[in-house]
Amino acid sequence: MNTSLVILAAGKGTRMNSDLPKVLHPIAGEAMLIHAMESGRVLAPEHTVVVAGHGADLVRAATLAHDPDAIVVEQAEQLGTAHAVAQAREALAAFDGMTVVLYGDTPFIRAETLERMQAALDHHDVAVLGFEAADPARYGRLVMDGDTLERIVEFKDATDAERAITLCNSGVVAARTELLFDLIDAVGNDNAAGEYYLTDIVGLARGRGLRATAVTCDEAETMGVNSRADLALADATFQTRARAALLEDGVTLTAPETVYLARDTVIGRDTLIEPNVVFGPGVTVESGATIRAFSHLEGCHVARGGVVGPYARLRPGAELAEDVRVGNFVEIKNAQVAEGAKINHLSYVGDAFVGAAANIGAGTITCNYDGVMKHHTHIGARAFIGSNTMLVAPVSIGDGAMTGSGSVITSDVEPDALALARAPQVEKPGMGRKLFEILKAKKARMQRGS
Amino acid sequence: MNTSLVILAAGKGTRMNSDLPKVLHPIAGEAMLIHAMESGRVLAPEHTVVVAGHGADLVRAATLAHDPDAIVVEQAEQLGTAHAVAQAREALAAFDGMTVVLYGDTPFIRAETLERMQAALDHHDVAVLGFEAADPARYGRLVMDGDTLERIVEFKDATDAERAITLCNSGVVAARTELLFDLIDAVGNDNAAGEYYLTDIVGLARGRGLRATAVTCDEAETMGVNSRADLALADATFQTRARAALLEDGVTLTAPETVYLARDTVIGRDTLIEPNVVFGPGVTVESGATIRAFSHLEGCHVARGGVVGPYARLRPGAELAEDVRVGNFVEIKNAQVAEGAKINHLSYVGDAFVGAAANIGAGTITCNYDGVMKHHTHIGARAFIGSNTMLVAPVSIGDGAMTGSGSVITSDVEPDALALARAPQVEKPGMGRKLFEILKAKKARMQRGS
Amino acid sequence: MNTSLVILAAGKGTRMNSDLPKVLHPIAGEAMLIHAMESGRVLAPEHTVVVAGHGADLVRAATLAHDPDAIVVEQAEQLGTAHAVAQAREALAAFDGMTVVLYGDTPFIRAETLERMQAALDHHDVAVLGFEAADPARYGRLVMDGDTLERIVEFKDATDAERAITLCNSGVVAARTELLFDLIDAVGNDNAAGEYYLTDIVGLARGRGLRATAVTCDEAETMGVNSRADLALADATFQTRARAALLEDGVTLTAPETVYLARDTVIGRDTLIEPNVVFGPGVTVESGATIRAFSHLEGCHVARGGVVGPYARLRPGAELAEDVRVGNFVEIKNAQVAEGAKINHLSYVGDAFVGAAANIGAGTITCNYDGVMKHHTHIGARAFIGSNTMLVAPVSIGDGAMTGSGSVITSDVEPDALALARAPQVEKPGMGRKLFEILKAKKARMQRGS
Repeated sequence: MNTSLVILAAGKGTRMNSDLPKVLHPIAGEAMLIHAMESGRVLAPEHTVVVAGHGADLVRAATLAHDPDAIVVEQAEQLGTAHAVAQAREALAAFDGMTVVLYGDTPFIRAETLERMQAALDHHDVAVLGFEAADPARYGRLVMDGDTLERIVEFKDATDAERAITLCNSGVVAARTELLFDLIDAVGNDNAAGEYYLTDIVGLARGRGLRATAVTCDEAETMGVNSRADLALADATFQTRARAALLEDGVTLTAPETVYLARDTVIGRDTLIEPNVVFGPGVTVESGATIRAFSHLEGCHVARGGVVGPYARLRPGAELAEDVRVGNFVEIKNAQVAEGAKINHLSYVGDAFVGAAANIGAGTITCNYDGVMKHHTHIGARAFIGSNTMLVAPVSIGDGAMTGSGSVITSDVEPDALALARAPQVEKPGMGRKLFEILKAKKARMQRGS
Repeated sequence: MNTSLVILAAGKGTRMNSDLPKVLHPIAGEAMLIHAMESGRVLAPEHTVVVAGHGADLVRAATLAHDPDAIVVEQAEQLGTAHAVAQAREALAAFDGMTVVLYGDTPFIRAETLERMQAALDHHDVAVLGFEAADPARYGRLVMDGDTLERIVEFKDATDAERAITLCNSGVVAARTELLFDLIDAVGNDNAAGEYYLTDIVGLARGRGLRATAVTCDEAETMGVNSRADLALADATFQTRARAALLEDGVTLTAPETVYLARDTVIGRDTLIEPNVVFGPGVTVESGATIRAFSHLEGCHVARGGVVGPYARLRPGAELAEDVRVGNFVEIKNAQVAEGAKINHLSYVGDAFVGAAANIGAGTITCNYDGVMKHHTHIGARAFIGSNTMLVAPVSIGDGAMTGSGSVITSDVEPDALALARAPQVEKPGMGRKLFEILKAKKARMQRGS
Repeated sequence: MNTSLVILAAGKGTRMNSDLPKVLHPIAGEAMLIHAMESGRVLAPEHTVVVAGHGADLVRAATLAHDPDAIVVEQAEQLGTAHAVAQAREALAAFDGMTVVLYGDTPFIRAETLERMQAALDHHDVAVLGFEAADPARYGRLVMDGDTLERIVEFKDATDAERAITLCNSGVVAARTELLFDLIDAVGNDNAAGEYYLTDIVGLARGRGLRATAVTCDEAETMGVNSRADLALADATFQTRARAALLEDGVTLTAPETVYLARDTVIGRDTLIEPNVVFGPGVTVESGATIRAFSHLEGCHVARGGVVGPYARLRPGAELAEDVRVGNFVEIKNAQVAEGAKINHLSYVGDAFVGAAANIGAGTITCNYDGVMKHHTHIGARAFIGSNTMLVAPVSIGDGAMTGSGSVITSDVEPDALALARAPQVEKPGMGRKLFEILKAKKARMQRGS
């Protein structure tokens, strides 16, 4: 069935104490809205409508950056969840099929759960996602009769018998698109808050003799984020799951609790991750690699047999081929490093190609920025770049060429050549000692003077 | 009312297994004695007397370094808490008002608790701080009659009924100064340990018909430190509170449990702190900054919009203006960095001024030390410092000037000028390959020879 | 009594989901097999036999690398634990004394426990190590009669009464060597799995009227590793113990849970370890040193008063004498650094000697590798190496000598001399601004063109 997603993302999130709209706060390095959008992806939605409100411009930008085909509608006033969903009507009016309503601040609904929501519509008109609450507190309760969901009752309106129910409302709803908007039309705002509640559609549907049901999931999936402490807890929850999945997949994490993963981190079997490693978005590491302590990776690829770190920073566009070695205090950005090359110490390699089996000496810098533009550096296979070589881009070092330590290379170097740019060493006997004495005398004079 | 503090800091702390006096062991980077002194500061004490004993010279030095107006007295023999307080008599004899007795190894008494101690003296002669102990174990018990504290009974002297009491003695005491020393005069040492116990003043006061009471606080506030494990636990307790306070204030901590804070860390709203960041003393970060993973900050300031790290080290005197960017493997010390300047990679900037919108290339070093003295470097606004420039201080680079990559700059550079110090590049065709062959042959000969 | 160890290390460890044999997976940086071998060392075994199977070549190599005197035998087919032990018969046939059977995937048996196993043979013929299980689950049960172990019953064969027993079988067994192999000869494989179980020797011994008993230990000691999650838990268990031991020894760990230790880490009293420090194998730190945050140490020595880090990497062979200072973004490998020397920033010192009180400027690199061989650098006492000096090894800097910042030093420098290799500074007035303008114009043209 043709599926549409509506993601409610209009709330301010007062308790976040932030200028940033709540749904844009990050979990594992990405806005929680993106997590919600991605969790809905399992339904292969043809249309995704994000309902923005507070900080709508920022929400629109983030949404479209992630999915240019998404539709962002604005809820100018926040008049309740039914009113929020109603803003998507125009965008979805032309489409049949089903609509699922998700929440931008509820990032952990699992794919398998949404598939069960979808399947529930085979035999029911409305499906609501519920969970058995360990502490039902003030959640709305799902009043069931067999597998029929009779109504959703808010805590404050519930009888004692209803309050004893532990099956609670997550807010996630699925229905045929046309029916969803029909029911929403009938929702009123005759309640204390004067708001239009999406939950009311269940009672309305039952009143019309339609079939409603509940799908249940683990309470952890329905975890919402309302404060920075919640946000930190959500991140921790994400990390715990992601680390366990890697262990299950045959990755060794020496100290799992110190490894930070992104939503899309992919790590191959028999890779070793030492303590204190941070993965930003867009990282893939193949099997049998080693990521040593204190490394930081974003938007990069490490092929089989690679050894990275400790203290290596791989930035977006770093592509390491098999058996590449990147050592301590090395930054690599937008660079292809071919098989078996070594960049072991204190270097910056950006906007570059490094050939197979090349050896990049300590302190090497690709001078890629001239103050206005970025330029490219090419280093050939088996080249030996002497320590502290400055490669002033655009520049090309031929295969098998060598540069002398401390050289500033501004012109291309032919294959197999040796390039040097070095002042001759001059020695002034006794001058080291003399300079020390002069400086000490000067210091003594200054101290007397002060 | 004029308030004096007496802080007992004479104990050896045998279980610390240390040459350092117990109260000088650090929590969150500062001696626990300093935490105790700072917690007493809410009372605006006119006189602070620290009673030192073991390691008295070190304790004196640490006390006066933190508060030059404090008075350090020495307890030559450790004859009990009343005897310790008695050492402060001479220092406080001339003053009326009240005295509060705190402990150098009990760093977490809250301001609000001490204010309640102070207020209790409005209606009572002696106030003792108690706590409901989860496990009363061998603590002294506070025997109450209504809100009157009748006496403090040591566990070993307690009846079964008294042992059933869960309100325990923290040792913190407040009384009018004159009365406190009068009561202490009456304390005897007729007990198993032959010590003079401060707790005895309660019974003595009641015996004179004076009013005593208890003020209660959370047990966690009374946590004492007796071993390195206690010390680690105290640090963890401090961190948990400090992190929660930041979250409440609208700071995002991606992984709160990996961020280490100091007593005086100040971080503005909507700042993002990534995992694994360490704050030493004296750091302020304004709103809307980002401190990336693996950064280390001490005694520095980061203004609005700054982005620091990953792997940035800001040392004392680093002052970053708005929108400054400090990147990986960069150390900054005693340097003002003006608005929008960038120091992105592998640099050392010390004893320097960096002008607005200046760009400091990778590998730049301010050579501030000549082996005897430190010197200053000035970099003008919009200057472009080429990669691996050595700025031999004292030296000044004019506004809008540029230095060539790999230059050693020893003389001042005029505004808008280009300064270069670079040997010409020389290329020796085929010499790279030849050198490799020579070296390989040499190695082979050495291996045959060995 | 002459003691032999048999360590069973043949299992595949299917749940590890790995190409590496299970016993070679690391805990605290070393194969768990090595932990098992080391725990047996307290018995001063004259013969250690490791029974390899899956990945036998790798297991053999790891065993012999750790203990060249160990004997590795191969169990071609995995027919049960008795069959595995039987593979050691030939290696041990000539020896009398006792044999203890350990497991390569059970790394935490304590020395004191094994000593009690050994002592138990004074009065018994067979000793089995048991533990009181918090959740006995499906472990085999030890059926005792007083201090006599009657038999070991597998869970699936146990009566209800036997299942109520909480004393469970760890698998660790000790017996006189000759008797052990006699009993193993009698073990049959008439069971569901068709395997030869070592546990059967207890019933066989009792059947012959021999004396068997159980020695008990803490359940945590018997922890086995069957998955990557187990491995991470084992590492965490190791770390928790090792950290607690350091605290007990008078070491301050600011945040113990962030310090990763190796099996052989030795740290002196009154040393301070800041958060986020990783110790690989082979590190000793003397009393009164400080290891600052984000440091990484392997195979190195830090003497009294040394200050290392933050962000310092000490690699194997780094030997720091008293009061040496190694600062941020510094890597030291195979180098002796004499008393009071300072290497504070952004340097690589490898294959070198650094003299007493020498000062190594920021950005200094010992260029130890010429593309084929490694060479040595000598830096004399009190030498002052200017920032960004390249020391092209082999090279020697005399005592008290000085090198100019940015110099490439290829020839030896005499004591007290000053060595320079520096191009003169040239200034081109207005050229900085002009270059910017040219580059901006060029960029504009390119953008128009695109």
